[in-house]
Amino acid sequence: MTQVAGCELCALAAPAVFENEKFAVILVDDANYPGFARVIWKDHVREVSDLADEDRLLLNDAVWTLELAVREVMAPLKVNVASLGNVVPHLHWHVIPRYADDAHFPAPVWAQAVRTTPADVLAGRHALLAELAAAITRRFASR
Amino acid sequence: MTQVAGCELCALAAPAVFENEKFAVILVDDANYPGFARVIWKDHVREVSDLADEDRLLLNDAVWTLELAVREVMAPLKVNVASLGNVVPHLHWHVIPRYADDAHFPAPVWAQAVRTTPADVLAGRHALLAELAAAITRRFASR
Repeated sequence: MTQVAGCELCALAAPAVFENEKFAVILVDDANYPGFARVIWKDHVREVSDLADEDRLLLNDAVWTLELAVREVMAPLKVNVASLGNVVPHLHWHVIPRYADDAHFPAPVWAQAVRTTPADVLAGRHALLAELAAAITRRFASR
Repeated sequence: MTQVAGCELCALAAPAVFENEKFAVILVDDANYPGFARVIWKDHVREVSDLADEDRLLLNDAVWTLELAVREVMAPLKVNVASLGNVVPHLHWHVIPRYADDAHFPAPVWAQAVRTTPADVLAGRHALLAELAAAITRRFASR
């Protein structure tokens, strides 16, 4: 496995909710987006198309499994899924639950915020994170 | 196949570079992002995880094939791949070639623009679009 000194995703600072030898699943600590989660490929690979077929399918399965867990617990209006990596070119996927009252909807979360989500609504979503972690663990353990 | 009246992706106004009974591949007409391409699933499905496994793998293969064509011809610094669908909740994938001199780099293309790409650089990339279309056609024909 290739590891690059100074790459924050090679270092994998965040504790993983699930991990195996190939990838880790983490919950992103974003005050506006409780339920925002990531799949981080462990090898320092730049693009999806740099992966061998077997690994590409494994990663696709992981992103799909994470999407199912996020839908099950967070019940979003829409799921956003993206692999960007312009700042940290180490393969990772964002899975983001979106709601009509979130800070950017319907724009992507990387656009300018257009509103403040009511604090009680955000608190209610934050309160689901333990359940989300359990759903992720359960779904990945049974893959 | 489900089709929804008024859905612009069900209507599929753009001419496809490649299509089959399941999906269409189009080049997006974005002055700042020559080489921006999309895979549009033909059935009016909301999320990746609404697809049957067989279709999910077919779509994954299509996005990967498109990424390979974009890399081959556009030689980007990074590829961004995303399925958002907040505005038009009809499953589609963006494949976007990114460069250090593009309008938003390293931010996502949905953030605020931070620069103007030199016109001659953009013209050079626009000049590659016929070759990109040919590469897409060739790669999808051989899948």
